[in-house]
Amino acid sequence: MVKERLITKEEAVGRITPEDIERMFYPVISETDKSKLKSSYIGEGINAVPGAAAGQIMFTAEDAENAFNKGMKVILVRKETSPEDVGGMHAAQGILTATGGKTSHAAVVARGWGKCCVVGAEILDINAEKKTMTVKGKTYKQGDWLTLDGSTGSIYAGQLALKDPILPPEFKVLMGWCDTIRTVNVRTNADSPSDAKKAIEMGAEGIGLCRTEHMFFEGRDRQLAIQTMIVADTKEDRVKALSKLLPYQRKDFEGIFDAMNGKPVTIRLIDPPLHEFTPKDAAGIKELSKVAKMPEDKVRARIDQLHESNPMLGHRGCRLCITYPEILEMQVQAIIEAAVSVAKKGKKVFPEIMIPLTIAEKEFNILEERVRAVADPIIKAAKSKVKYLVGTMIEIPRAALMANRIAEKAEFFSFGTNDLTQMTMGLSRDDAGRFLPEYVDEKKAAIFKADPFQVLDQEGVGQLVKMGIERGRSTRPNLKVGICGEHGGELSSVKFCCAQGMNYVSCSPYRVPIARLACAQYEVESKAKKSSAKKPAAKKAGAKPMMKKAPARKAAKRK
Amino acid sequence: MVKERLITKEEAVGRITPEDIERMFYPVISETDKSKLKSSYIGEGINAVPGAAAGQIMFTAEDAENAFNKGMKVILVRKETSPEDVGGMHAAQGILTATGGKTSHAAVVARGWGKCCVVGAEILDINAEKKTMTVKGKTYKQGDWLTLDGSTGSIYAGQLALKDPILPPEFKVLMGWCDTIRTVNVRTNADSPSDAKKAIEMGAEGIGLCRTEHMFFEGRDRQLAIQTMIVADTKEDRVKALSKLLPYQRKDFEGIFDAMNGKPVTIRLIDPPLHEFTPKDAAGIKELSKVAKMPEDKVRARIDQLHESNPMLGHRGCRLCITYPEILEMQVQAIIEAAVSVAKKGKKVFPEIMIPLTIAEKEFNILEERVRAVADPIIKAAKSKVKYLVGTMIEIPRAALMANRIAEKAEFFSFGTNDLTQMTMGLSRDDAGRFLPEYVDEKKAAIFKADPFQVLDQEGVGQLVKMGIERGRSTRPNLKVGICGEHGGELSSVKFCCAQGMNYVSCSPYRVPIARLACAQYEVESKAKKSSAKKPAAKKAGAKPMMKKAPARKAAKRK
Repeated sequence: MVKERLITKEEAVGRITPEDIERMFYPVISETDKSKLKSSYIGEGINAVPGAAAGQIMFTAEDAENAFNKGMKVILVRKETSPEDVGGMHAAQGILTATGGKTSHAAVVARGWGKCCVVGAEILDINAEKKTMTVKGKTYKQGDWLTLDGSTGSIYAGQLALKDPILPPEFKVLMGWCDTIRTVNVRTNADSPSDAKKAIEMGAEGIGLCRTEHMFFEGRDRQLAIQTMIVADTKEDRVKALSKLLPYQRKDFEGIFDAMNGKPVTIRLIDPPLHEFTPKDAAGIKELSKVAKMPEDKVRARIDQLHESNPMLGHRGCRLCITYPEILEMQVQAIIEAAVSVAKKGKKVFPEIMIPLTIAEKEFNILEERVRAVADPIIKAAKSKVKYLVGTMIEIPRAALMANRIAEKAEFFSFGTNDLTQMTMGLSRDDAGRFLPEYVDEKKAAIFKADPFQVLDQEGVGQLVKMGIERGRSTRPNLKVGICGEHGGELSSVKFCCAQGMNYVSCSPYRVPIARLACAQYEVESKAKKSSAKKPAAKKAGAKPMMKKAPARKAAKRK
Repeated sequence: MVKERLITKEEAVGRITPEDIERMFYPVISETDKSKLKSSYIGEGINAVPGAAAGQIMFTAEDAENAFNKGMKVILVRKETSPEDVGGMHAAQGILTATGGKTSHAAVVARGWGKCCVVGAEILDINAEKKTMTVKGKTYKQGDWLTLDGSTGSIYAGQLALKDPILPPEFKVLMGWCDTIRTVNVRTNADSPSDAKKAIEMGAEGIGLCRTEHMFFEGRDRQLAIQTMIVADTKEDRVKALSKLLPYQRKDFEGIFDAMNGKPVTIRLIDPPLHEFTPKDAAGIKELSKVAKMPEDKVRARIDQLHESNPMLGHRGCRLCITYPEILEMQVQAIIEAAVSVAKKGKKVFPEIMIPLTIAEKEFNILEERVRAVADPIIKAAKSKVKYLVGTMIEIPRAALMANRIAEKAEFFSFGTNDLTQMTMGLSRDDAGRFLPEYVDEKKAAIFKADPFQVLDQEGVGQLVKMGIERGRSTRPNLKVGICGEHGGELSSVKFCCAQGMNYVSCSPYRVPIARLACAQYEVESKAKKSSAKKPAAKKAGAKPMMKKAPARKAAKRK
């Protein structure tokens, strides 16, 4: 239609929906035999991440990884997932859980990878010991085939035929129009070199959130090193354990910087509470006891000590770096050494070191000084010209309230709207499944129009976002601001972020095209508003001059 | 000195410290034999609630209650306490825990009662099964005597002599001056008729927080009724179980209204998550299974289902009443029937029904309607003239942000600054002990000047308090506003509340005199400021006219 001059490019961009885009990226079940579909159907859960997947059932992350290494296709079936399962989740074609909602660990992690995921399938009766699951009286065992449809939440027995999506050439053209129109950058959340490469393919202009702790879970060596650090009694022992992690982290960062080639990479220092890293079973405790050279009961006692009533509000984020500066020091060393080394190879590198969970300017200032105290001597010694920024997440209400003071030293803000939503609304993402559906259901209480973890609560949480940006820029007018929560890939939330003057939004790789579309639609809509305010009768007239100006605006984008 | 006209009453009030007052209320160890003190000393914990107590060690709440019923004096020793222990805690002379800080469950509950409490005594190695504890190699068993000094945190073996405080007559005179000077009301947090009587003695002008759920723990019958409600499958079964609680709640409310005789009583509807009420051991599950006529494994499964990752941010407060309106209906019926019945006896009654954990105006409006739908017909049928208010806690950041809209229907706000601090700072009161000391310690990070759970974080959390009041009164200019968090009994926090225009502060009964002092000091200080702004050289001159005007201001107090 644009070719035939029936509509403008802006109108075309305005007509596309996020669903139109999502549909293009995910495999679908291609089985057309309806009676086969019907007889295979065994029930359904919540459609957490769209797309279809078929594989053999594995009930533990370890089994899933082993099967994957043997070349098998795997569906990982768990009651719920935890960070320890990430390796197995990554190895699986699709993930199926018996509990949890669209914001459960499984759903959020899978969404980040664009991996088919069905959660909260309460019909599953999983027997973890026997490695079986029973659904409506029928028992499925490890190795049985299962097909999931993440778009509908349907679960099928057996291996149904799937079809891969083929991106139509029009998609690239459309995305090109979006990129010309929009002025806000789109970054992605990526934790590994392979994620980073994928992100570039999807059009990401930087990494807005690189979660360093995922690097601690990949492989037994790394897990044991972080676990040894955790149970250590002295700073010396912690430093020793951390030094084992250093080369792994450095290598990961090198891979990421290499893939991003000068595009900014925001690296968040350690975020989750330490108990997320500890071994959960007797065998794990035994192995750790051996490696850490510490009696088993002492290891167990140390792990017990770490238990928290409300881990979300506990000893995590930068609080860990206040207590254990050596963690921050190791991570910063790895980041800067990697940056220097990649820069030496002639590539551009631009790391942005991000402090999570900040609540006070003094807390930030202490950590910012520690970061620079590690980073600057490395750069100087290498005679490198690497530049880096130190900034913070704004994810606790107090941080938004104190943004003017925090921005005195912080060079950038990234709104962690997942946690900001949790704290501002007093809602645990993991537990809200029990009552939030009723709050959102328009046939029930209908207190909210949408799940606030999917769609940013603009009128509540949004006030703190607005306040945080305004106050931050009142101290530091050129403060770089972005968002790295789930909302960074949701249409209305991204438009809100654009309206607040953010420099970029960041989302999972698979949502980057949606974010590009949303940023472009924001420009089209705000131009239309301005134009209709001037000349109410001449809506189309506003579109043309905008396209002419676009290259200038594109150039004006702040990276 | 006032008698001798050396200083004015205002100056006298200004010179008293909270510690001066606290000291007058708590028993002290009167043992003067220093060598005996030294030989009895076995170590120390954190001084959570001042005063001294001696008693025989009991390791479970049940043993403590049984011993108390036999006329024994008890020190309850626990690793940590939970709401299920409240009966045993109440029965004890003093409470000693191995874990937790000044804001742990044990500390907060004990502070409410002014009961000696030492927490976080990590030197204790408690063996709950054997009912023994070992300290530095020496083992103490159930029934052994122990003396605690809650003012210092010291723990002594054996029974040391204690001395009860004698209130000097000057205390009453001083408090009288405070009452004449101050314009802000002082209420108390009280959950039972006996608390209410105590509160009146301490000078409270109303109850600012009556926590109804404490009523569910007193006695096995009540516990089983609430537990039966929790595991019930249908609304009918829940209503049936709740109807068993109704007479207990009604009787408690009657006792409270009777004691308060027309003073306002703010009653908070159910607040904690349901899992806090469930049985924790096999015997409890067995008994519940019998009473609820439900197989044990189903009871267990239902309890397991209730587990939450972050209960503080979970299915609690008014969220329970959205999901289970029958809980609210039973509680409102009990409150209003009690009010009508006490009013019939010729007493004045003024209940204020408070919705906890509100985050949205629609949520409040739904519940307010439900309250009135239960209350009004009861009042009408009884041809009673009882008046009541419906208002809300402001304890989640979003509630403060949306205060203008919530105040459209809410007739009063009570700032729950404990939870507001938790959410605004992303700090769990139960877990902060692991890192908060370092944040507060002026020799370490010194990020905060004081523990924000003890002293209100005026510059952070205080912004939301200020915003909540301003926005609430922008919609409803005569909005009644108070505070019912721990901060309502802390000097600087109370002064802050006065400065924000609150109508009242509410605190534990034993802190009422401190709150009265703080409110008076606020007036003295703000008058002095105004006066020195006018006539910088005549500070004392400001005091006299203030005293003359005082009766008028006293009359102007809003109840």
